[in-house]
Amino acid sequence: MRGRFGEQASEDVSSRELASKALSSRDLFFEGSEKKIEISLHSGGSSLRELGQGFWSQISTRANADILSSISNEHCDAYVLSESSLFVWDDKFLMLTCGTSVLVDAALLFIEKLGVDRIAFVSYQRKSEYFSHLQGSSFSDDIKRLRAVLPGDAVRVGHLDAHHHYLYTSHSETAIETKNSVSELLMYHIQGPAAEYLRSAEQSISRIRDLLKLNELFPGFIFDDFLFKPFGYSINGLCGERYMTIHITPQESSSYVSLETDLDLTQSNGLLLSRLLNIFNPGCWDIIAFNSAPNTQGFPAHICIGSCTMTTSHGDKVSFTHFQQDQHEVLHPERL
Amino acid sequence: MRGRFGEQASEDVSSRELASKALSSRDLFFEGSEKKIEISLHSGGSSLRELGQGFWSQISTRANADILSSISNEHCDAYVLSESSLFVWDDKFLMLTCGTSVLVDAALLFIEKLGVDRIAFVSYQRKSEYFSHLQGSSFSDDIKRLRAVLPGDAVRVGHLDAHHHYLYTSHSETAIETKNSVSELLMYHIQGPAAEYLRSAEQSISRIRDLLKLNELFPGFIFDDFLFKPFGYSINGLCGERYMTIHITPQESSSYVSLETDLDLTQSNGLLLSRLLNIFNPGCWDIIAFNSAPNTQGFPAHICIGSCTMTTSHGDKVSFTHFQQDQHEVLHPERL
Repeated sequence: MRGRFGEQASEDVSSRELASKALSSRDLFFEGSEKKIEISLHSGGSSLRELGQGFWSQISTRANADILSSISNEHCDAYVLSESSLFVWDDKFLMLTCGTSVLVDAALLFIEKLGVDRIAFVSYQRKSEYFSHLQGSSFSDDIKRLRAVLPGDAVRVGHLDAHHHYLYTSHSETAIETKNSVSELLMYHIQGPAAEYLRSAEQSISRIRDLLKLNELFPGFIFDDFLFKPFGYSINGLCGERYMTIHITPQESSSYVSLETDLDLTQSNGLLLSRLLNIFNPGCWDIIAFNSAPNTQGFPAHICIGSCTMTTSHGDKVSFTHFQQDQHEVLHPERL
Repeated sequence: MRGRFGEQASEDVSSRELASKALSSRDLFFEGSEKKIEISLHSGGSSLRELGQGFWSQISTRANADILSSISNEHCDAYVLSESSLFVWDDKFLMLTCGTSVLVDAALLFIEKLGVDRIAFVSYQRKSEYFSHLQGSSFSDDIKRLRAVLPGDAVRVGHLDAHHHYLYTSHSETAIETKNSVSELLMYHIQGPAAEYLRSAEQSISRIRDLLKLNELFPGFIFDDFLFKPFGYSINGLCGERYMTIHITPQESSSYVSLETDLDLTQSNGLLLSRLLNIFNPGCWDIIAFNSAPNTQGFPAHICIGSCTMTTSHGDKVSFTHFQQDQHEVLHPERL
């Protein structure tokens, strides 16, 4: 089994042995940065949820990810994967994969199985990686393959030597009536008590849930989470039509925490991002918002280095914003 | 012939044709970030300069670089390469190569040809690349090969998702008596009139020399420069025992300008870096200083995001500092 660090924690002996090797959080590199695909179907066909876990397991395996556990409610089936998450609704699915997964392989298998005529819209996003040279494909490779099936627009936002984000959106003949509000918060170089706990040898799911103040920040949600060994934590949550997912790669050399949710962050959840920023205290962070404008009230002291707002051919309003803590960091040489 | 952009400018028809294709500075990617190697010999042997241009041409070719031109004075032979620069003194050489060159191949060929017993010290440095996945090797690959010949220490300074720098220094039995003061200024996202001129279709060497205020900033130096087509400029300079080299990759997607010099920047040349920063107006920049502490007087308004000071086993005091202009940048999506 794969996982955020090559192995998942479980109660078998081999995993315990792995943990007992006392791996340092400084030594272990893992690519937390996700690729993300969302595929919507034309209305009128059978539900994607009816395809069952066997089907989704096959799709996940194609991206080199395994299904670890799942929760469901009346709207959605949410799977925690060895490499991030999968959410399946009746007429669309959303899959995030980290590590060296080739998510586009899974997307193409899905399109092949269902037939391209059923596909209404594809959105594919890729965040800049820590170690792009270890990836199985580049964004440019990926969109060449996607475009061969579904023509679409692709852009990069952000300088190549800094955080940057890639987005492909397929050309869509039908306008989408209700725009999804989705917010992504990507945090880098987490510091402080939460970061230290997440790098420590003995962790528990209940303590992590407390650290993240999950019940307070996501009231009414049902959760499904997984603690990897020696490090790493993934959680999915559902509440009515809303979803959330958080993935934590805590190790010092490449620490990264991502949140994605379709909660409306302009309303009662307006402080969600600032609450998470204050828990993880990242050196820098990015916000990617689709049809949403999260407010920055309560953010740690920062400068906003750069931002971009654009509208896709599909009509989605997308913004990318890159924040840096307003403080000087003493860097420590890392021996190689 | 290779070059900073695949072709060098010359007066032949093919180069003119290339230029006439009106390539946009936005479209063309070139990896300007350099790898750098310095190899010093034990005293007492024959001079490296006596090996002649044929020898150095062979070494350069091994790194996929060609010698384009040269200047000499009583201390040094300086070569402009299709991928950056080579400086040869009696008892040491310094080679910088950009693009997808594998500089460590050249270093290993040199060591093989002279015999490892003549090598007193090797310092190998690599700056984080814009597109590391296009490189022929990683730093980790490189040091594995270097260490097989000469044991040494290696470190990374800076976060993997931001500018970071790698440095390998061989273990040295003999302490170096006189420390070299070397300063490197690496500028990213250049803006303003100089940047615009360097991206324009019709450029001349004399106009670029004026823009760079070369005679004023480097009085007494002799220069050797090369203008690449459609973009890019390299210059070497010598003055007595001192050297300087500047390499410019102007295109918008990956603009990068580097200066390296052993001029003492605490003395009469104290404003050299700030003068260059005001000419190129980069969005961010790094300074790497060996046994030197360049002052920041006159720098554009900035925040110093991070810095690190360390002493190598060799006794060199090395500092890395990462600066960001204190302004918000409106980012533009780049269509792919």
